[in-house]
Amino acid sequence: MENNQRREILIAVIAKLTAKPGHEEELGAALTDGAAKVLAGEPGCLLYRVARSRSEAGVYKLMEVYESQAALDAHPNTPHFAEIRTALAAHLGAAPEVEFLDALN
Amino acid sequence: MENNQRREILIAVIAKLTAKPGHEEELGAALTDGAAKVLAGEPGCLLYRVARSRSEAGVYKLMEVYESQAALDAHPNTPHFAEIRTALAAHLGAAPEVEFLDALN
Repeated sequence: MENNQRREILIAVIAKLTAKPGHEEELGAALTDGAAKVLAGEPGCLLYRVARSRSEAGVYKLMEVYESQAALDAHPNTPHFAEIRTALAAHLGAAPEVEFLDALN
Repeated sequence: MENNQRREILIAVIAKLTAKPGHEEELGAALTDGAAKVLAGEPGCLLYRVARSRSEAGVYKLMEVYESQAALDAHPNTPHFAEIRTALAAHLGAAPEVEFLDALN
């Protein structure tokens, strides 16, 4: 491997998930359950934080970092991701908004 | 302390910083320098990631988590924050947008 092998850029994801009215608590619970599965099952996922907005009712943000494009590509194809998607579907009021970023540290 | 003492809620912050045109690289460098100072100088800061948007030119997002309101309140009053603010000022094209959230994990 060359010494100046460019360190693979870490990939960050910020996702916005909006609850169906009346499903705010359930969405939060499904997201934190899902986070535990991701962190346990995906060593390439370096960060997976669930946070509830204080300014937008029923809105949650996910803060994620993956060690490589391969780790990010594998994420939606894991068995637990299918479970998470099913669990979330009942409580989402809008399609998730997902932003991809280059993590710099 | 009561047993059912509610665990202090972790506070998450997602901040959007937009570079002055032509200052994109300098803003990124100033942010990553600042991140190193925060992580070294603020034990109450549990997460401080700098990421560059892949969809919005010149936009950086900060993903931060603090262990308590006290840790968050202390953040802007640290000596290094004043240095960071000065370093950023020359490269910002708009006022930072800051969102506060309750971190759930």
